[in-house]
Amino acid sequence: MISDLRELDRLTGGPGGARRVCWTDEWAAARAFLRELLDEVPAEVTVDAAGNLWALVAGASDEVIAVGSHIDSVPSGGWLDGALGVMAAVEVLRSLHSPARGVALVDWADEEGARFGRSLLGSSAFAGTLDPAAVRGLTDSDGVTLADALAAHGVSVDEMASVARDRHPSPAAYLELHIEQGPVLEAEGLACGAVLGTVGVERHRVVFEGRTGHAGTTPMDRRSDAGIAAARVMTGLQNIGLRHRGVCTAGRLDLDPGIVTAVPGRAELLVDQRHLDPEALAAMLSEARELWESAAGREGCTVAVERIFGIDPVPFHDGLTAAATEACGTGRSLPSGALHDASELAGVVPTAMVFSSSREGVSHAPDEDTSEADLVLAIEAFGTLAERVIAGGVP
Amino acid sequence: MISDLRELDRLTGGPGGARRVCWTDEWAAARAFLRELLDEVPAEVTVDAAGNLWALVAGASDEVIAVGSHIDSVPSGGWLDGALGVMAAVEVLRSLHSPARGVALVDWADEEGARFGRSLLGSSAFAGTLDPAAVRGLTDSDGVTLADALAAHGVSVDEMASVARDRHPSPAAYLELHIEQGPVLEAEGLACGAVLGTVGVERHRVVFEGRTGHAGTTPMDRRSDAGIAAARVMTGLQNIGLRHRGVCTAGRLDLDPGIVTAVPGRAELLVDQRHLDPEALAAMLSEARELWESAAGREGCTVAVERIFGIDPVPFHDGLTAAATEACGTGRSLPSGALHDASELAGVVPTAMVFSSSREGVSHAPDEDTSEADLVLAIEAFGTLAERVIAGGVP
Repeated sequence: MISDLRELDRLTGGPGGARRVCWTDEWAAARAFLRELLDEVPAEVTVDAAGNLWALVAGASDEVIAVGSHIDSVPSGGWLDGALGVMAAVEVLRSLHSPARGVALVDWADEEGARFGRSLLGSSAFAGTLDPAAVRGLTDSDGVTLADALAAHGVSVDEMASVARDRHPSPAAYLELHIEQGPVLEAEGLACGAVLGTVGVERHRVVFEGRTGHAGTTPMDRRSDAGIAAARVMTGLQNIGLRHRGVCTAGRLDLDPGIVTAVPGRAELLVDQRHLDPEALAAMLSEARELWESAAGREGCTVAVERIFGIDPVPFHDGLTAAATEACGTGRSLPSGALHDASELAGVVPTAMVFSSSREGVSHAPDEDTSEADLVLAIEAFGTLAERVIAGGVP
Repeated sequence: MISDLRELDRLTGGPGGARRVCWTDEWAAARAFLRELLDEVPAEVTVDAAGNLWALVAGASDEVIAVGSHIDSVPSGGWLDGALGVMAAVEVLRSLHSPARGVALVDWADEEGARFGRSLLGSSAFAGTLDPAAVRGLTDSDGVTLADALAAHGVSVDEMASVARDRHPSPAAYLELHIEQGPVLEAEGLACGAVLGTVGVERHRVVFEGRTGHAGTTPMDRRSDAGIAAARVMTGLQNIGLRHRGVCTAGRLDLDPGIVTAVPGRAELLVDQRHLDPEALAAMLSEARELWESAAGREGCTVAVERIFGIDPVPFHDGLTAAATEACGTGRSLPSGALHDASELAGVVPTAMVFSSSREGVSHAPDEDTSEADLVLAIEAFGTLAERVIAGGVP
């Protein structure tokens, strides 16, 4: 299976990184390679109206367990993000012998949203959360619309939502293996862990307005320095994140006029907060609000805040996650700080994920990697979980 | 005199601000207007090899007192910056009746450095601190060299330095009236004050290198956030400036990669520190060094620091400054946070300055202003000072 991953990387990646951006020829080439692998297992391969590829192996009962991930990548992406879970699903199909339940490999279309800026496209169509009208007119950097790009690959935007009305197959559970894309497992010396769910996100633009002044002629006690107000928020957010065991990040700060000889009269800060627990996320946001209000007051600035993105936490299925933790053999479970197709599936199907470690937490980059030893352990754990669920053990 | 200032503004400024950038036609037009005014006083007008315009009125003794400022402006500048001091000097010439000492108005060439980025050009030539080789090849935004632009106005770069070898006139004192360009006098309800000197400057680029990480997947306790290290320096600098009664400014911060979903792995901060007292300036810098080292250590980052600009404090002449304080009648003296031609002159001639208030401290902008009531008081104070010095009272 790892040599299949390496072959996929040879075909559609290489030293410059993965090139499997969805709705491109490279992505189609990756899918053609996937179909070659599926030709060697007794599976019925179909593509649904949202562009998701399914490979179904019937079982003794009518119930079907879905296993998969996404074969698309960001530009200059890593060799494992998405591809690991798809190849693990191929391996699950290969290992089947008269399964109790049916098994469906699924390769979700356009998880990354790299070309049109809308991620989880195929899985959200399947889960019934996609509004085709909201995405139809999205354009790529060449001005091509999402509708035209999908049509070139046989997908009609107007028909995509139909997959949620008539799910075929309609899985009894969904299982996904993915790299962690973070440093936690590696730091603890663990190859894999179960995923508790995907975190909720609160994202805000915080704009302080003070008074621009000459750096030489404006005394300290006559300043309204918007930059210092923002700096107080940056350091305070660190404390909030640590205290609640969530994450708070100030990734961008723009000072205006932004020159060495001027006191900044305006500061625009982008704040991202995430937590798996909705109450903790709300508490973190509430404390952040107090923080930016008090920082503004202290520096004699005004503050205007705009919510620019938000999503609720998505907990995964308790019983399946317990089984995943057991399969990993490490006792370790952790939240996912990034979204996955599993975040969409969890709304409609009992869902679990397994993470492999990620070297230095690097992802969405050509040097994304995981040691072969850890990959083997993670794939085996995922296989153990899938075997148990397919056999009817859970849920 | 104020109507002369308004007429100069009408000719070479207006609603879009002053347009008297040195070595341009607008600047030449301003000088032509100045020459018209000087035609009405019994002064000998000359331009020295550095492009400085002099208007000399002989006195009973051979000693000469220089009074002046600069008529050039930044693009879209204010109506008072520089022009106030030149017009006040015209008024001093007008008021003379058989002076004890000679009086020389001087309009220094290219104080602002707006076209070629080298300020205090004419006054530094006069003071002997100009290296022509270092400025000859400077170019403006159209690629014109400083040497060619000056030649078009009759000034040879190669000859500029000669004015320092044979100062003619060689003044016994230099007096300059200027707007404060800061908020201090206005805030204290004062029209004018004496200037203690111009502050020294320490300017550094401080670069923190941490580790870029995914905002969702990198736990708080596994981050090396270069942005937070920079934020700690920003808030700490405020304390340093307040404690030493100097100024410390962080006017620019660039975070890399600078996106809301990434922990900043690199932060580049520009730091400006100023103080009139050299020991206090050194202490502020020393504390800043401790600050950025400790911030880097706390956040697990490295820090690299580069000095990008520095200048020593320039104290003005004690006796003259005492006389200026007395003439202002306010008892108030203050440091200048910006450089002036007087900073160059103070190295070779006993020098004093008077500041008028500045509305909201605004300068280098079209809305730079001072109330007419304050202008009158400041001009009268400057006249009183000049009268006393010309009479031989000081120094």
